[in-house]
Amino acid sequence: MEFSAIEIAGILHGEVQGDPNVRIDKLTKIEEAQTGSLSFLANPKYSHYLYHTRASAVIVNRTFVPEKAVTPTLIRVDDAYRAFSELLKCYDRSAADRVGIEKHSFIARSARLGDSVYIGAFSYVGAHVKLADRVRIYPHVYVGNGVEIGSDTVIFPGVRIYFNTRIGKRCTLHSNAVIGADGFGFAPNGENHYDKIPQTGNVVVEDFVEIGSGTTIDRATLGSTVIRTGVKLDNQIQIAHNVDLGSHTVIAAQTGIAGSTKVGENCMIGGQVGIVGHLNIGDRVRIAAQSGVTSDLPDDTTWFGSPAMAAKAYRKSFVYFRKLPEVVKCLESLEKRVGEMERGKDVR
Amino acid sequence: MEFSAIEIAGILHGEVQGDPNVRIDKLTKIEEAQTGSLSFLANPKYSHYLYHTRASAVIVNRTFVPEKAVTPTLIRVDDAYRAFSELLKCYDRSAADRVGIEKHSFIARSARLGDSVYIGAFSYVGAHVKLADRVRIYPHVYVGNGVEIGSDTVIFPGVRIYFNTRIGKRCTLHSNAVIGADGFGFAPNGENHYDKIPQTGNVVVEDFVEIGSGTTIDRATLGSTVIRTGVKLDNQIQIAHNVDLGSHTVIAAQTGIAGSTKVGENCMIGGQVGIVGHLNIGDRVRIAAQSGVTSDLPDDTTWFGSPAMAAKAYRKSFVYFRKLPEVVKCLESLEKRVGEMERGKDVR
Amino acid sequence: MEFSAIEIAGILHGEVQGDPNVRIDKLTKIEEAQTGSLSFLANPKYSHYLYHTRASAVIVNRTFVPEKAVTPTLIRVDDAYRAFSELLKCYDRSAADRVGIEKHSFIARSARLGDSVYIGAFSYVGAHVKLADRVRIYPHVYVGNGVEIGSDTVIFPGVRIYFNTRIGKRCTLHSNAVIGADGFGFAPNGENHYDKIPQTGNVVVEDFVEIGSGTTIDRATLGSTVIRTGVKLDNQIQIAHNVDLGSHTVIAAQTGIAGSTKVGENCMIGGQVGIVGHLNIGDRVRIAAQSGVTSDLPDDTTWFGSPAMAAKAYRKSFVYFRKLPEVVKCLESLEKRVGEMERGKDVR
Repeated sequence: MEFSAIEIAGILHGEVQGDPNVRIDKLTKIEEAQTGSLSFLANPKYSHYLYHTRASAVIVNRTFVPEKAVTPTLIRVDDAYRAFSELLKCYDRSAADRVGIEKHSFIARSARLGDSVYIGAFSYVGAHVKLADRVRIYPHVYVGNGVEIGSDTVIFPGVRIYFNTRIGKRCTLHSNAVIGADGFGFAPNGENHYDKIPQTGNVVVEDFVEIGSGTTIDRATLGSTVIRTGVKLDNQIQIAHNVDLGSHTVIAAQTGIAGSTKVGENCMIGGQVGIVGHLNIGDRVRIAAQSGVTSDLPDDTTWFGSPAMAAKAYRKSFVYFRKLPEVVKCLESLEKRVGEMERGKDVR
Repeated sequence: MEFSAIEIAGILHGEVQGDPNVRIDKLTKIEEAQTGSLSFLANPKYSHYLYHTRASAVIVNRTFVPEKAVTPTLIRVDDAYRAFSELLKCYDRSAADRVGIEKHSFIARSARLGDSVYIGAFSYVGAHVKLADRVRIYPHVYVGNGVEIGSDTVIFPGVRIYFNTRIGKRCTLHSNAVIGADGFGFAPNGENHYDKIPQTGNVVVEDFVEIGSGTTIDRATLGSTVIRTGVKLDNQIQIAHNVDLGSHTVIAAQTGIAGSTKVGENCMIGGQVGIVGHLNIGDRVRIAAQSGVTSDLPDDTTWFGSPAMAAKAYRKSFVYFRKLPEVVKCLESLEKRVGEMERGKDVR
Repeated sequence: MEFSAIEIAGILHGEVQGDPNVRIDKLTKIEEAQTGSLSFLANPKYSHYLYHTRASAVIVNRTFVPEKAVTPTLIRVDDAYRAFSELLKCYDRSAADRVGIEKHSFIARSARLGDSVYIGAFSYVGAHVKLADRVRIYPHVYVGNGVEIGSDTVIFPGVRIYFNTRIGKRCTLHSNAVIGADGFGFAPNGENHYDKIPQTGNVVVEDFVEIGSGTTIDRATLGSTVIRTGVKLDNQIQIAHNVDLGSHTVIAAQTGIAGSTKVGENCMIGGQVGIVGHLNIGDRVRIAAQSGVTSDLPDDTTWFGSPAMAAKAYRKSFVYFRKLPEVVKCLESLEKRVGEMERGKDVR
């Protein structure tokens, strides 16, 4: 990828001030820019960087007036932040050009492939799989029997998708995510041993879902584990069997949700949170990082701590936890004073 | 998989009431059933679902007397719950029919394969590996040099087994588990740097063990990391070098056990628990989710919190943690009253 | 690997006492030794094991004087611990002999390979990749377009390296680590939905870095996520986009560091720690396991708890947390006594 400032101004409907032919080969924050970098300046708080930056070009608002001389070429646009975001999206789309079947892949005869599908080397596409148009499957992916994947979904290297999983359109699954492995279900038998409870359900992932690297989503014992439209899951998250995640809920890394818990829509769940099984979490619930949730949570509430409490209450209690040594000292001195008064009274 | 109600009644030694030819193509909970579903009704609490369900057939106890008209075909058996479990097991066994060597696999000449082994495409079986009868290795599995795997063990896609690992019979290893990578051992040298301590041992997994997706079990520095008979490990668990897990111990997702810790038999350990290294955890110990264990734990005890305390004591302390703002307010008002009394005395 | 005691004494410049021809086929701790084991005795605390061990040979200090008859062959050296460590290193190097390209691998034409490189079966080496001399890539590894890997680095099975990642020399990446997947960046749009923020940066891993199994390191939104020289990461660690880890910092398993946080040099971070985003952690900082860090931390400090406090202060507060029921009981009884005194006064 190499462009000139004038070419980029063309894409952004901007105006060039300075050398129009300067070469751009990367997008960089203004404070980290080097020769060849294109940066942007939107927040006036960062303007001072402009006078020292090594960037070759900087996108600025049309209304921006520099206070000193400026070395990089300026590209003036209506909204510098939005223009830079547009460029990032162009960049991202340009990575999305893989099409065709690479050699060394395994595709069952009964699999049905849409138009413009990409299947990378060493990927395995099982019997009766259905891949819609423009699905991209990178190398080393396992797609088990009977799996269906919607259009424009991207599956990165090393993802494992067990049999009968359903994945919607425009989803992204990152490397080494595992979808549809057995739920963790065992029944104690008489002798302190465990018998496995067969896990016969599946996983249903709806549209516009993103799933991070190493995240595991187990299939249901019966029925489906469901990840609804627009859910965003970070890396190394664990979703147990029969969980149901509501639309547009966002979960940060290393959080675990135990079996059969239902989470509402538009929730925001921090990293390393644990939620026990068989709970109902409402809509628009916020849960702080490292919290441990052990009871149902109503809509529009915020939680913190392990076990989790209303966030404000937890913070108040924690203020006094920090002061516990002082609190106890105060109590002890008070006890002494009361003892002295009591003895004083007795003496009288 | 498609059956008629009469065929299923035959398998279960049950009696059909209603249409014997209704077609069944899935097993479903009664509250989520659809056309084609076979469900069961064992707990009287759920009987009301029977009168509205869309299930095509429902297994009920022979003694069950409906209170209203019923649409689905009923299959009457001695014990509805047990009968349904039997069907689930049949279903599970039917998935277990893969045999043979798929093309694109790599099998070292010195590897020894038992009867009816399955090796999936893109799997790698190293030198001197021994696979017993009916071992099933799905695609994309790495079996390092000198590994031995017992009969009927199933290894799902993407599992990595480093050299010299021993795995017993009837084990299940889920996708992307890693067995036998280097333990995390480094010795500080003079210059604030670290030298690697070679990790020359291995991992021994005994029989009837289940290992979840993304779980990592490191090999010993010297000797063996041991996972004993019947242990069940959920997803994304970390077992460090030289750990020894006792028979039939069950551990939930995202728990980590540090180096050289010994865990007894029949323990139940919740999710996201951390146990530090070089500890002795007794038999039948229970540890609540998100606990942090920092000391040896005796047999038959229950623990909670971080650092972990006896579970009852932790819960009591936590009750007052919640009330800390009130406790402190009470202390402050008491201090005031005592101050007033002291001043009152002085005045007198 | 099989040696005689006299051969090992030769390697170690030691002296044999006992049968010089006894066969050695494994290295084992003295308390776990079996026939064929070579063990060592350095710490006098363990001497009693020597008189009962089943080891075939034991390395001891030249100055060691047994108190009773000894069965195993002794190999006397100047420093028994150091001699044993030397043997472990020999053992480790002997595993490092893989060279050449195994069949079933995929290597893009534009990739450039150094001397004595190993590429295992089913590994994928993308366009414009540069592998320096003696890089060893085990089976099932994905090396994306434009990745560069320095000399003597070892990549174990199933590692995924996204495009443009830079990895230094003498690094070790364990199975199923994922380097360079998209950072977790989404911008809420008007309708409670999220738009993806393109992640256009990369990951830079410097020299002598070790990365554990299942660890995930996301690429930067812009610029680079940086793992500096000598960093050691245990298994299942999550490093978010734009994090910068200082040289020789060591992190235990299952810890997560959120976006844009900068960690200093020579830090020691325990397991299951969470660090929120956009923080500055100083040099030589120590953070206890399961801590939750929510603010900047100065150099040379030690932290504990969630939210993290200075470790000493946390431990003090926790002592009183344990005693909270007693503290409250004490407060209640004091309140009673004060009430009685007040009433006494009123009566008077």
